[in-house]
Amino acid sequence: MGVRYLTAKLAQQIDEELMNAAGAFSLDQLMELAGLACAQTLAKVYDSKRYPRVLVCCGPGNQGGDGLVAARHLGMFGYKPTIYMPKPGSKDIYKRLQAQCTNMDITTLEPSTSVDSLRDALSSSDVILDAIFGFSFKGPVRVPFDSALSLISSSKLPIVSVDIPSGWDVEEGNASGVGLEPDVLVSLTAPKEGVIAFKGRHFLGGRFVPKAMEQKFELNLPSYPGFDQIVELPRTSEANSQKL
Amino acid sequence: MGVRYLTAKLAQQIDEELMNAAGAFSLDQLMELAGLACAQTLAKVYDSKRYPRVLVCCGPGNQGGDGLVAARHLGMFGYKPTIYMPKPGSKDIYKRLQAQCTNMDITTLEPSTSVDSLRDALSSSDVILDAIFGFSFKGPVRVPFDSALSLISSSKLPIVSVDIPSGWDVEEGNASGVGLEPDVLVSLTAPKEGVIAFKGRHFLGGRFVPKAMEQKFELNLPSYPGFDQIVELPRTSEANSQKL
Repeated sequence: MGVRYLTAKLAQQIDEELMNAAGAFSLDQLMELAGLACAQTLAKVYDSKRYPRVLVCCGPGNQGGDGLVAARHLGMFGYKPTIYMPKPGSKDIYKRLQAQCTNMDITTLEPSTSVDSLRDALSSSDVILDAIFGFSFKGPVRVPFDSALSLISSSKLPIVSVDIPSGWDVEEGNASGVGLEPDVLVSLTAPKEGVIAFKGRHFLGGRFVPKAMEQKFELNLPSYPGFDQIVELPRTSEANSQKL
Repeated sequence: MGVRYLTAKLAQQIDEELMNAAGAFSLDQLMELAGLACAQTLAKVYDSKRYPRVLVCCGPGNQGGDGLVAARHLGMFGYKPTIYMPKPGSKDIYKRLQAQCTNMDITTLEPSTSVDSLRDALSSSDVILDAIFGFSFKGPVRVPFDSALSLISSSKLPIVSVDIPSGWDVEEGNASGVGLEPDVLVSLTAPKEGVIAFKGRHFLGGRFVPKAMEQKFELNLPSYPGFDQIVELPRTSEANSQKL
């Protein structure tokens, strides 16, 4: 039996339990490990020599925070990341994570609803890390992300999406057709129902789920190799996965 | 020119700068990455099949926190860690880190000044992670750690020490002779002067120092390979290292 694909509701519940008494994790910790897993996934597939310039696209929520952490680690790995974060979240943690990037000479494009800066940044990037929308996304896609998704798509650059490709419904996938079509996906904790038919390379990150929680939610997680923070999943098919 | 070896004062200053405006890191983040580096070092040298039972010895300070993080990751890597933490620190973060271990079914020995439980634990362990004292240690070693160090030494188990082998002076090394003699050392951020003549396998962790800070303190850090969190240092000699 393959890994379980989560509904939006279940993903939310697991996220909450990781931070309440059952997990006892802080948001700082989970974001650090999630962002590290995202950076490692990109580094595993796109070599820093051939793809040095990474445009890290961050949304206003926690997934944007994962993106900021990933940008910092990518800088440490020898990439030249640039951050596109047109609507910075208001939580203090995002400010701290962004300051960490600034301290490492990672540029954040000026927040603005204009998409000109995004267009310029795309023309001087080699690969995209898509950390715009996560498992709590509800459509439709709003300004400025509507234009952003369309510009990113038309750039034809390779895309690594975090958890759910931006614009996809968490359970129904890219039914609307406005979502990104990534080459690589890194699911966090467990994959979501919407990506069950995803055909690209698919990694899992979030090596922090306690065994008791894994069993309670029947996640049936694969074994991570050695001391890696990511594991590549076999190409998915309806046959080897379990819906609720 | 080799990596710089730090005085106790400089180590303290760098630690502070990582968390003030120059670094902007939270303690949660730094401890998570440091503990992960410790766990990866142990896993690199001591295979989980041959050395499954790790006794993680934690002091009352931040290094004890690194140890708790390492214990959790070691559990994730397939080891069976047990925590010896006779004087739990009072900071809230230690309670949270310990709760995370408990949630993962990692046992913490009852805090107690009796060393009987330590003796029993040693007799059913394969390797020690020494996270008792760090770069802020000032001798002499006090109860119950005096007996603990002597029991750990006489167990003849392999030892992985974090940053400074417990009982060593941060600058003078094991001049007193009461310190542990580890097989493996993982220095965090940069090695300390006291370990300049250390003869075992020596790793460096703490892949989060901003370039500007590295240059300011002339750390001359080695390159980390790929997306690893640790790098092995060449065997040290006075010739290839720089004292202040």
